[in-house]
Amino acid sequence: MVPTGGVSVSERSVAQNAQLALLLEVSGTPKPGNVDREREHDDLRFEHFMAGAVGARPGLDRAAAGDPLGPAFETAVEGMAGQSAGNTQFGALLILTPLAAAASDGRLSPSGVDAVVRETTVDDAAAFYRSFEHVDVAVDDPPDGLEPLDVRRGSDAIPELRSRGLTLFDVMESSADVDGVAAEWVSGFERVFEASEMLLDGSGPVADRASDVFIALLADEPDTFVVTRQNRETAEEVQRRAQAVLDGEEDATALAAEFVERDINPGTTADLVVGGLFVALERGLEV
Amino acid sequence: MVPTGGVSVSERSVAQNAQLALLLEVSGTPKPGNVDREREHDDLRFEHFMAGAVGARPGLDRAAAGDPLGPAFETAVEGMAGQSAGNTQFGALLILTPLAAAASDGRLSPSGVDAVVRETTVDDAAAFYRSFEHVDVAVDDPPDGLEPLDVRRGSDAIPELRSRGLTLFDVMESSADVDGVAAEWVSGFERVFEASEMLLDGSGPVADRASDVFIALLADEPDTFVVTRQNRETAEEVQRRAQAVLDGEEDATALAAEFVERDINPGTTADLVVGGLFVALERGLEV
Repeated sequence: MVPTGGVSVSERSVAQNAQLALLLEVSGTPKPGNVDREREHDDLRFEHFMAGAVGARPGLDRAAAGDPLGPAFETAVEGMAGQSAGNTQFGALLILTPLAAAASDGRLSPSGVDAVVRETTVDDAAAFYRSFEHVDVAVDDPPDGLEPLDVRRGSDAIPELRSRGLTLFDVMESSADVDGVAAEWVSGFERVFEASEMLLDGSGPVADRASDVFIALLADEPDTFVVTRQNRETAEEVQRRAQAVLDGEEDATALAAEFVERDINPGTTADLVVGGLFVALERGLEV
Repeated sequence: MVPTGGVSVSERSVAQNAQLALLLEVSGTPKPGNVDREREHDDLRFEHFMAGAVGARPGLDRAAAGDPLGPAFETAVEGMAGQSAGNTQFGALLILTPLAAAASDGRLSPSGVDAVVRETTVDDAAAFYRSFEHVDVAVDDPPDGLEPLDVRRGSDAIPELRSRGLTLFDVMESSADVDGVAAEWVSGFERVFEASEMLLDGSGPVADRASDVFIALLADEPDTFVVTRQNRETAEEVQRRAQAVLDGEEDATALAAEFVERDINPGTTADLVVGGLFVALERGLEV
């Protein structure tokens, strides 16, 4: 952490590293399909991600202070939504809040964060459902039999949650096979920690490493947000073409332009990169 | 403040708006000579500004909480310097701290912030001098007779400050004719409020408005940071060429490339834009 230009370095808090992870993720470019420093949509711009990261901070502070995860997440989402584009970083916050809780508790490891998410309660699940009232989030229809627990019902679903005694971990487990963020919750944040290793092992500007890791993760598995918004076929095409970038057969910048044009936004993969950046910052990644 | 995409909007705090102003300023592009989303220097990158804005937050919180301005500023600078590029936003924080103090006190107006800065004390001046120990800042040699008060002496100059009974306002007043930030301190933040009006009167993405206001301010007066790092002749050339952009005779993007190449960085003008963004956000500028 020795700076080349400054005279002193102050350590960042857990919540500061969480906020910085949000900012560095969107600073990486190119990240084919995502908003980044050089690409944005008319109604979802770079500046909305800046405001989202600023607004989310009180919720990140709550997670770092050891508040229950669900309410901390809800606070983060409510603050994040305080800009005109609506949902910018919902999934990223769902990744960050347990990581921040684990970090401030001295257990930022796959087993440590696994313990944190398994300690969540029915009240945490209720707060998670309430968070959908603050912002529109693209989600799939619930599986058969789980219609009463459709997240789009918001707090109307809370009595059902309570009668079934479902914790936030249980809720995540029920969608782990269709949602890449939920999959992290039930796997000890496996891909997040993998991303953090890639970031720490990399060299050069952090924003460039974020872009590289994004493409590597994208080539690794289909992005579930693309599955939700388009379909599995498109998500598999995205995966193949990210691999082609890694193989030197496609140009990342051209692919980014095409994906933005086609409104293909691999948002879940971006969420994982945010988590990876947070873990890497906590482990000494120098900016 | 009604969002088009989100369901609810949470109000940002004064410190959040101050932090967001730092982030939005560097998000504007092109800003000829400055780091922006599309231009950076090898040793001063976009990501350093992200980390600077995150690190500065505790000092902004102190200013908004009504703590004395000097110590709040010193805390902001110390946190801002916690990244490897050193000085990213020193001048911007010197603009923001009194504005944040005025805003949380319900007096964010030229006369209100004028009162805030005139209330500063010798202790505030001492903290300002200490802040130079946290980071290298490009400054001019002091005027004749003021060598004992050279800011580069850091806390070594504090006994001299005390024996002369100089407040932070007095210190700013002594360099108001050579430093555009100090000039704001003694003029009721005239150009900052002017910038805020331009931002509020504009339309379209906030980052684009920030870029437009930057060029307008640059065409208005020579940038004192360019005077310090290069010379007055260069600063006057920068001013003329910014005017040529306004007149449609030069292209802002080409000018940006040239200024970065020549290491011309009109940083004081960027500091004024940060202040203008903060005032505009406090007055309802929607992101």
